[in-house]
Amino acid sequence: MPDIETFDNPHPQRDYVIKHVAPEFTSVCPKTHQPDFGTIEVEYVADKLCIELKSLKYYLQGYRDVGVFYEDVINRILDDLVAACKPRWMKVTGKFTPRGGIHSIITAEYKGR
Amino acid sequence: MPDIETFDNPHPQRDYVIKHVAPEFTSVCPKTHQPDFGTIEVEYVADKLCIELKSLKYYLQGYRDVGVFYEDVINRILDDLVAACKPRWMKVTGKFTPRGGIHSIITAEYKGR
Amino acid sequence: MPDIETFDNPHPQRDYVIKHVAPEFTSVCPKTHQPDFGTIEVEYVADKLCIELKSLKYYLQGYRDVGVFYEDVINRILDDLVAACKPRWMKVTGKFTPRGGIHSIITAEYKGR
Amino acid sequence: MPDIETFDNPHPQRDYVIKHVAPEFTSVCPKTHQPDFGTIEVEYVADKLCIELKSLKYYLQGYRDVGVFYEDVINRILDDLVAACKPRWMKVTGKFTPRGGIHSIITAEYKGR
Amino acid sequence: MPDIETFDNPHPQRDYVIKHVAPEFTSVCPKTHQPDFGTIEVEYVADKLCIELKSLKYYLQGYRDVGVFYEDVINRILDDLVAACKPRWMKVTGKFTPRGGIHSIITAEYKGR
Amino acid sequence: MPDIETFDNPHPQRDYVIKHVAPEFTSVCPKTHQPDFGTIEVEYVADKLCIELKSLKYYLQGYRDVGVFYEDVINRILDDLVAACKPRWMKVTGKFTPRGGIHSIITAEYKGR
Amino acid sequence: MPDIETFDNPHPQRDYVIKHVAPEFTSVCPKTHQPDFGTIEVEYVADKLCIELKSLKYYLQGYRDVGVFYEDVINRILDDLVAACKPRWMKVTGKFTPRGGIHSIITAEYKGR
Amino acid sequence: MPDIETFDNPHPQRDYVIKHVAPEFTSVCPKTHQPDFGTIEVEYVADKLCIELKSLKYYLQGYRDVGVFYEDVINRILDDLVAACKPRWMKVTGKFTPRGGIHSIITAEYKGR
Amino acid sequence: MPDIETFDNPHPQRDYVIKHVAPEFTSVCPKTHQPDFGTIEVEYVADKLCIELKSLKYYLQGYRDVGVFYEDVINRILDDLVAACKPRWMKVTGKFTPRGGIHSIITAEYKGR
Amino acid sequence: MPDIETFDNPHPQRDYVIKHVAPEFTSVCPKTHQPDFGTIEVEYVADKLCIELKSLKYYLQGYRDVGVFYEDVINRILDDLVAACKPRWMKVTGKFTPRGGIHSIITAEYKGR
Repeated sequence: MPDIETFDNPHPQRDYVIKHVAPEFTSVCPKTHQPDFGTIEVEYVADKLCIELKSLKYYLQGYRDVGVFYEDVINRILDDLVAACKPRWMKVTGKFTPRGGIHSIITAEYKGR
Repeated sequence: MPDIETFDNPHPQRDYVIKHVAPEFTSVCPKTHQPDFGTIEVEYVADKLCIELKSLKYYLQGYRDVGVFYEDVINRILDDLVAACKPRWMKVTGKFTPRGGIHSIITAEYKGR
Repeated sequence: MPDIETFDNPHPQRDYVIKHVAPEFTSVCPKTHQPDFGTIEVEYVADKLCIELKSLKYYLQGYRDVGVFYEDVINRILDDLVAACKPRWMKVTGKFTPRGGIHSIITAEYKGR
Repeated sequence: MPDIETFDNPHPQRDYVIKHVAPEFTSVCPKTHQPDFGTIEVEYVADKLCIELKSLKYYLQGYRDVGVFYEDVINRILDDLVAACKPRWMKVTGKFTPRGGIHSIITAEYKGR
Repeated sequence: MPDIETFDNPHPQRDYVIKHVAPEFTSVCPKTHQPDFGTIEVEYVADKLCIELKSLKYYLQGYRDVGVFYEDVINRILDDLVAACKPRWMKVTGKFTPRGGIHSIITAEYKGR
Repeated sequence: MPDIETFDNPHPQRDYVIKHVAPEFTSVCPKTHQPDFGTIEVEYVADKLCIELKSLKYYLQGYRDVGVFYEDVINRILDDLVAACKPRWMKVTGKFTPRGGIHSIITAEYKGR
Repeated sequence: MPDIETFDNPHPQRDYVIKHVAPEFTSVCPKTHQPDFGTIEVEYVADKLCIELKSLKYYLQGYRDVGVFYEDVINRILDDLVAACKPRWMKVTGKFTPRGGIHSIITAEYKGR
Repeated sequence: MPDIETFDNPHPQRDYVIKHVAPEFTSVCPKTHQPDFGTIEVEYVADKLCIELKSLKYYLQGYRDVGVFYEDVINRILDDLVAACKPRWMKVTGKFTPRGGIHSIITAEYKGR
Repeated sequence: MPDIETFDNPHPQRDYVIKHVAPEFTSVCPKTHQPDFGTIEVEYVADKLCIELKSLKYYLQGYRDVGVFYEDVINRILDDLVAACKPRWMKVTGKFTPRGGIHSIITAEYKGR
Repeated sequence: MPDIETFDNPHPQRDYVIKHVAPEFTSVCPKTHQPDFGTIEVEYVADKLCIELKSLKYYLQGYRDVGVFYEDVINRILDDLVAACKPRWMKVTGKFTPRGGIHSIITAEYKGR
């Protein structure tokens, strides 16, 4: 995956919520090798570092050719973003388009230190 | 009913929420023998096992020719899915289309061990 | 009013929520003798008995020629349904269409024994 | 049915379109004796007379206890309104709520002299 | 398929449009043997006969276990309904839920004699 | 009524369409003396003059205390605006909020010279 | 302001919620003397008295020519309605249309005795 | 690109309209090498052949790694589909997500022989 | 204004429609010096040249500090784009946010040679 | 930035909530020098002072030519508004339009003294 870049949180003295919504996510189903599509939402309270938006875009694009299950990819994105910006709190949600007539929503949360 | 298959939860160390929404559910009214239609929503926190999506589709299709009341089917789906994947928590909701000008929503919850 | 029929709750060991939404309710304003229109929502946790859907339809149709205020009818429906099925909890909501440019929503709750 | 009252078209020298939308229509199914519900739309170009709005409300309320099929009632409303105000053109549409999972829309037009 | 019943058009002297919308249609894919779901819309100008609504419901339910392609079923419904009520004009539309991420809409029209 | 001011059409060599939508219209019912509310839409092709937006606002506010029927007010607005800016074409529409459960839409058109 | 009339709460033994939504509110800006428009929502738990709907309409119409700020009018309506019906709890909300590209929502609550 | 498969039109004696809507289209911008996303709509009147749905899905997936402009890709899809099924008429539309704050819709039509 | 760049129409043998929607337009009112906001839609049939999307973005940004009336700016954009790409047909629409409670839509069309 | 003006809270004895929604916000990205667009929501409980609406408009317009990150501008607006009116509580939210296919929502809260 491309690196997630960060910049200094301009207001670290305050707990405030940053949410990025990326509706152009695509990866590959590891079983059928068919493309999957969905919207990724990242919501967090920054500590010392904020996620740089352009590098988030490149990071998410890094899954374009990766075979990964819904349940796995949301947890991996959460782990990578937590490692990169060490937030006070973070939640990652994936809302995936229907497969076999069923659409899925996965939500994982990092409760902070 | 077809068996519900499972796969190993790839991130069992974390409580995270998985939701599947199946708008193509149909069963049969046990009184009128007329087809019923609705959307089934399954939301859960996995423990060791996740529900495999394709087998969930086949399981729900298994009700296509079954005569069952709304109140009953939602509880039976919940019981079967809890038995199959032994989740930390699960909620099943059915939103049924109007009958006699009235539409119904049934929600049952398994609160975990 | 027509009787509300019941059937045995198929899963009495669990608290689960049943909601019926009836958008075709009509009664008569006791002051102007003009028809009133609205949607009645009934939400409850059954104890030993569930409300039979067809008899609920007939019961609500029983108000078609009855003169009754919004505030009164919602409480009367709640009282009658509680008497009929003795639920663990019940809420009745009426959402009425505009009269004099104002629409009204009335909500009454039975908190159980 | 109550009489439809009229008033003098204040601008008869111009063809302009008047549309009234009445979402609180109810009649009775002649086969099942169950109430039907729908929205009636009346659209017309007046000649010498306009339809008085309050009398239109009372006229439509006159169907409350009348047993009549969808296809029939729309044509009868059109015939009565044309007779009452002799418009240059008129269209009546009924949009009825679902019965047996099917909702119906009926549209009849009077093409004028 | 169950028979489509008809009744005498109550207003045959006028061309008017009748539309029935049936969102609870289901059939079976002849290749995958998986259920298909969609909404069937029937719009027509009656001549001597109108389609009886309950028999239309039973007729459409008759496809529940039939393996048939989208393109075929819409034309077959049109042929059967034209044969049953001999309308002046008819259009049948099917709006099917997504398969493989693609949803389909098929529209066939009978232009009358 | 306040005067409608105009300014020179900056592009009179071209037929182009200008539409203003004013959702804050209120007048008084001449029968009941109750306030009426609605949205006024003005659409036109300017010839030499365009309608100044602020004066249109004041002109429409001028009806705040005027008793006038729906059918009348739309034609009067059309007449006044045509007189003020002498357009190549103009259409005025009023969409009024429900009275007695019925809402009304009136549309009048000036077809130009 | 016109008086707010009341009637006896038909079910005083129960705490239930009454909500009236009035989208046809208009007053005057005390600075610009321009009309303001908005929706007023009144939500309350009655004690011994309920607010009579028609008198609420007349009371709100009483602001039609009154110059008053958003923040002030919502509190004044709350004070007047609390004085009239002495409720167990009440909340008044005003949702006003845009001025200078900004729309405003004001909410005041009476927490009861 | 993967081949587009066809099957025999089951009702060639009638002109009827088939529409497939594919919201999961992605290609690559030839200038920035960034992924593009959009919805492709294919609407046609079949002659002897219908487009097989699964092969359409694979064909559209074939653009996943192709660098191509919006204006080009819509015309190329139209050319390929016309060559494959030789329809009586066809229209292809692409609705692309925003780039630089601007979203684009491209529509190309084959008018038949 | 920044120059509008073009590229060669990849399919000049066919009349097809290109539409760009830019919801982030802002200019300045020449009377009040207050910012205006709106959405600009450009729809055209290319002849030899297509409009390059990034240069369209910069061109529209060029109005950010320009004082110009709604009626004027839409015609100026149309003139500039027609001059730049010499299309077979073009339409420009501006949908502006409310001023004084009134929002405006302006549409100008170039009918081609 | 222009000064934020205030006026005396007309009802300081009560905690009530004031919300202003400004969808016409624009600033400049400090990295790309491209304009950013969004909606700013300000929600607060006044103490002795309320924010004057017109000065809020001018204050927000003051960012039109300022280069500032999303995370920074929301906190700066919160700080400035808190300093100006010393509220009991305040929340500022920015909902920004997509950049690189990702849109962002930032929320900062002042929890009062």
